[in-house]
Amino acid sequence: MSATQLVEGVLSGNRRDLARLISLIEDEEPSVPEALGQLYRHTGRGHIVGITGPPGSGKSTLVTRMTTEYRTRNKTVGIVCVDPSSPFTGGALLGDRIRMQEHALDREVFVRSMGTRGHLGGLARATSDAVRAIDAFGKDIIIVETVGAGQSEVEVIDIAHTILVIDVPGAGDDIQAIKAGIMEIADIFVVNKSDMPGAERKVTEINAMLDTDPRERAWRPPVLMTNARDGEGIAGLVDTIDAHRKYLVDSGLLAEKGLQRSREELKTIMEHKLTTELMEKLKGLPEYERAIKKIADRSDDPYSVAERLITKFLADYGRRVAESERKR
Amino acid sequence: MSATQLVEGVLSGNRRDLARLISLIEDEEPSVPEALGQLYRHTGRGHIVGITGPPGSGKSTLVTRMTTEYRTRNKTVGIVCVDPSSPFTGGALLGDRIRMQEHALDREVFVRSMGTRGHLGGLARATSDAVRAIDAFGKDIIIVETVGAGQSEVEVIDIAHTILVIDVPGAGDDIQAIKAGIMEIADIFVVNKSDMPGAERKVTEINAMLDTDPRERAWRPPVLMTNARDGEGIAGLVDTIDAHRKYLVDSGLLAEKGLQRSREELKTIMEHKLTTELMEKLKGLPEYERAIKKIADRSDDPYSVAERLITKFLADYGRRVAESERKR
Repeated sequence: MSATQLVEGVLSGNRRDLARLISLIEDEEPSVPEALGQLYRHTGRGHIVGITGPPGSGKSTLVTRMTTEYRTRNKTVGIVCVDPSSPFTGGALLGDRIRMQEHALDREVFVRSMGTRGHLGGLARATSDAVRAIDAFGKDIIIVETVGAGQSEVEVIDIAHTILVIDVPGAGDDIQAIKAGIMEIADIFVVNKSDMPGAERKVTEINAMLDTDPRERAWRPPVLMTNARDGEGIAGLVDTIDAHRKYLVDSGLLAEKGLQRSREELKTIMEHKLTTELMEKLKGLPEYERAIKKIADRSDDPYSVAERLITKFLADYGRRVAESERKR
Repeated sequence: MSATQLVEGVLSGNRRDLARLISLIEDEEPSVPEALGQLYRHTGRGHIVGITGPPGSGKSTLVTRMTTEYRTRNKTVGIVCVDPSSPFTGGALLGDRIRMQEHALDREVFVRSMGTRGHLGGLARATSDAVRAIDAFGKDIIIVETVGAGQSEVEVIDIAHTILVIDVPGAGDDIQAIKAGIMEIADIFVVNKSDMPGAERKVTEINAMLDTDPRERAWRPPVLMTNARDGEGIAGLVDTIDAHRKYLVDSGLLAEKGLQRSREELKTIMEHKLTTELMEKLKGLPEYERAIKKIADRSDDPYSVAERLITKFLADYGRRVAESERKR
């Protein structure tokens, strides 16, 4: 089955076709770009919520509760759980199954887990493409949850419109505490496990940190308390996400972010396409293999070789174009 | 100061020029590729040791002790400490300063910290380039230590000839425990803090895990115990690294790895060069800006636009080449 064959099914609301398409995205099946191109015009409607925070902060339970709240409000929900440190994939993580049991029979909730099949860059792109597919599928809210809170997580949830950073009382100076780079991307802070001692202090700490932020900004990230286990604070959190969406729309930031995202996406696609084409041309060329040997034995350097091979690739391509133009 | 101006200094053993060059590598100064090209033929002599493991496993102390041992054996040492989750850089991490005090006055030891300035892919490349510069500088042993133990760390130490995976007793099933993906890259396992209860059990556990590995391999990763704090097991560890080097050389794997690395490196450099050239051509073109707007408002999709722009870029280049050939 090729990705393009699944486009119609995805657009007509077939969940299995959506799941299959995401598997093909992970596998980098050749027709995926074409399929995503066909889906593209149907995207841009869902609101994407990114969630990150240290392990053990209760992100999964929070996502489950938020989903319940969204369903009460008649919103459909897509969930992508990403673990950059796990090679596991395919939506069968036992933990996910258990915790999402509550929504297992709800056809308006779509859940998917993703891990690293190859390198990290690939995961960020696959996640972004999966979110896009779920968006075209028609979910109102798409939640991207990452396990852990490192640089890789930041890249993965970069696609979100609203980013929640979760923390828990007492995580303090611990090595697991949220790193500076993560704090900066937060649109909303959530101190979960509000029944634990130190929750109020944690809120104060985060607010104090926000006070030291020299940037002028129209949206100061609110710091909310939740207790996901018993659902406390969840309605307020969902309200705040709505408010952030409204802020993005009214301020023109949503449009600006969209433009920025389009620019980056186009660049990524072009890079991928161009280098794929280059590598296909070089693959198996005796000259290419000889050059690699010379680099390995230090009789040539990769920078000079790259220069030569690229010039040759571009010139060959150019000559073909020029010729086909002459023939016309 | 441009990177190319530092090449001579680096080759003649000027430490400050080496430090400056690494800063320029981090800043992606334009002449860095040329400088690295000039240094390239002087590389390939140092043995690169990668070290990863969970926070708190005592990696830093281990590196300090290993350095002492190498110095006793008259080997010069370069150390690169990488923290993929930190935006910090420049070798001034307080912790590093303190722990490396022991070697601060030793001119044969070069220490450098690196953090993420931009995205992760950039860090892996910058680290690889820094290691290359230190190699050309002439250090016998280059240790790349990463903080944490995730997928990003795997990418960063991918350049190493010998990879040590550090674990500690009792880390067990904890979320901080070494992930499957990390286990697989280990050439040597080190159970540090051997004075803690459960050290022997940890060794047994890792060996049991190795027993289940279905791969046939000539080098079965040894599982060593160390107590870096008091230097126990360090000489044995350094001996084992030497033995692994010998194994790599004798089996032809070092040459094979070198070829593989050259292939990947050439590809990375070509990709970078080609896309830089493409983006320079597109930047500011009204057609390019219009296309981005159309993608953002969903009246066009990025895949079709990428196709068009790349074809145009290659054709333009080709026409110029064809013309210059006609003139000749």
